[in-house]
Amino acid sequence: MRIAVDAMGGDHAPREVVRGAINYAAANADEVILVGDVPRMEREIADYGRGRPASVTFVDAPEVIEMGEHPAAALRSKRRASVRVATDLVRDGAADAVVSAGSTGATMAAAVFRLGRIEGIDRPALPAHMVTATGPIMLLDVGANVDSTAENLVQFAAMGAIFAERVLHVPAPRIGLLNIGEEIEKGDALARAAHELLASADLNFVGNVEAHEMIAHRADVVVCDGFVGNVVIKLFEGLTSYIFRSLRADLQQGPVAPLALLALKPGFERIRQRFDYERYGGAPLLGVRGVSIVTHGRAKARMMEHAIRVASEAAAARIPDVIAEWTRSHPALRATPVPGPASLGVDVDGASTLATGPGADV
Amino acid sequence: MRIAVDAMGGDHAPREVVRGAINYAAANADEVILVGDVPRMEREIADYGRGRPASVTFVDAPEVIEMGEHPAAALRSKRRASVRVATDLVRDGAADAVVSAGSTGATMAAAVFRLGRIEGIDRPALPAHMVTATGPIMLLDVGANVDSTAENLVQFAAMGAIFAERVLHVPAPRIGLLNIGEEIEKGDALARAAHELLASADLNFVGNVEAHEMIAHRADVVVCDGFVGNVVIKLFEGLTSYIFRSLRADLQQGPVAPLALLALKPGFERIRQRFDYERYGGAPLLGVRGVSIVTHGRAKARMMEHAIRVASEAAAARIPDVIAEWTRSHPALRATPVPGPASLGVDVDGASTLATGPGADV
Repeated sequence: MRIAVDAMGGDHAPREVVRGAINYAAANADEVILVGDVPRMEREIADYGRGRPASVTFVDAPEVIEMGEHPAAALRSKRRASVRVATDLVRDGAADAVVSAGSTGATMAAAVFRLGRIEGIDRPALPAHMVTATGPIMLLDVGANVDSTAENLVQFAAMGAIFAERVLHVPAPRIGLLNIGEEIEKGDALARAAHELLASADLNFVGNVEAHEMIAHRADVVVCDGFVGNVVIKLFEGLTSYIFRSLRADLQQGPVAPLALLALKPGFERIRQRFDYERYGGAPLLGVRGVSIVTHGRAKARMMEHAIRVASEAAAARIPDVIAEWTRSHPALRATPVPGPASLGVDVDGASTLATGPGADV
Repeated sequence: MRIAVDAMGGDHAPREVVRGAINYAAANADEVILVGDVPRMEREIADYGRGRPASVTFVDAPEVIEMGEHPAAALRSKRRASVRVATDLVRDGAADAVVSAGSTGATMAAAVFRLGRIEGIDRPALPAHMVTATGPIMLLDVGANVDSTAENLVQFAAMGAIFAERVLHVPAPRIGLLNIGEEIEKGDALARAAHELLASADLNFVGNVEAHEMIAHRADVVVCDGFVGNVVIKLFEGLTSYIFRSLRADLQQGPVAPLALLALKPGFERIRQRFDYERYGGAPLLGVRGVSIVTHGRAKARMMEHAIRVASEAAAARIPDVIAEWTRSHPALRATPVPGPASLGVDVDGASTLATGPGADV
């Protein structure tokens, strides 16, 4: 596989991105194409001191889309932006997948506008992995869309299950609908309509899943509108880090605390591993004609390495082709295009919204 | 103040409810009216061995609405249900407030149908308190409504601010809108419309608040639709308890762990206090003509005691009168009644939904 990596995207770019790419290339047979400011990337490689594996190549793209920029506008004006150039490599068949830790809105916009939507998919969706004791849960959508329809949610379910089965290796993934009660009649208008449609589709639908049951891993793939999903992942991340910060502050007080904490180090290490979301690498924007992996803006080398691995596995599993095949074999579940602007591009990192007409080109 | 307490509601009723009531009455000047099965309540008081303070009286109501029952139907058929009889005491002027740890749906339905809505309030709302390092955040609605309008959210904001200021003693509470980005144009159709309306109202509106910023206490009162709010509180509760369970499991392993944990006991006690939601007692159903406090189904004596205190403070502050005054002085912000069934009664404890026409009587 040939993976295009946006070397300029993310809080620690290009340094950590370049290091992750070098580490990945050194350990795997894939080709890695670093897309960015070539002199800077060369300097980072020299600083790292591991040399450049022959499987790592450069493509020059000196422009960067910053977090605060409007994704669609920035993509349009910055023709040599690293994320745009990297995505175009996939479109043109020069790479099998693209990975970026930059502005999520810009990465998603590049995927939608440069790769295009899969026929029959109205709204591409962005999943997030949530860590639980017994494995990851895929929640989608977490912010590519707002004001979804029931048909959108059914497509999210099918796309999520395809990814969970073929990339996360979850056999027959259980699909749940995020809702506020177990019973069929529970929820808002969207949840009630989606429940009915999910139950009648040929999906492994296990019913409504409440937020606390999600933590208990009652389903492998959980679908919801992107507004709710975005709130969920931000609360998950915010609350987890708040609790661990509080723990540190509260436990470090007192004269014997340092020694006691030292004795508990293996236990804390077990917890750290339990909540290690980095190993999931990144999330694919599902529903576009190519593999585009969005990873965390705070990703460092290790997480970048995982994200490149996910991109390689998703490309090897031909996820976009499998989704296209699903829409062809389920003509009744093809979404009716919604009039008005598509909402794709709500940024999970808090950058600006992209609101644009469906199918518009940058 | 005279507080009617539903002695039969909750997982630990009547035992813990009776004990909480006795403890409260022993320490405060208020009257407590225990509503339930009189022989059982008498037995619990005898078992407790503290005697019955003169300020504790009984009202007989032998029927109980169970968690699985449909709230409206059960209220209609069980005329001597404890929560119905207790709520009627408020309606008839024999009590100043009612408290229940029973089915949230039934408690809310009793409040709406027996007390009635405040004129100009279209949808009563149920808040929840979320614990943070610097004080509680009031989030509303957490499940009394789904498919709210922007007007509903403005009313939630006004009602939440009134309660936060007069009962939680937060001076000039900062009101936030739960959203998925900081910018005005972010969010779904509801959030965008609500932002505009909140910004133009004479409220202390501080703008959009994302879920992780909520944890950082960026606002004192945060408004959202009940679907999202219900997901948030269930995730908050589920994730917090999951992390603490994981901690226990992971830290207790190894030969020196017990000793080290013993040394850290004061630290863990500080954390326990930090996440102690029991002291907030319970939440008022805001927008009904009387004070009705919903407390946790798992409430034990200590939390019941706090819930009765909240009821007393809300009654002393005449919260329903202040809300009615607000609606009178803000005729433009009175909600236009929505056609179709009101959704009040989605149960935060997972019991059945109550869907009924506005203003219907049981």
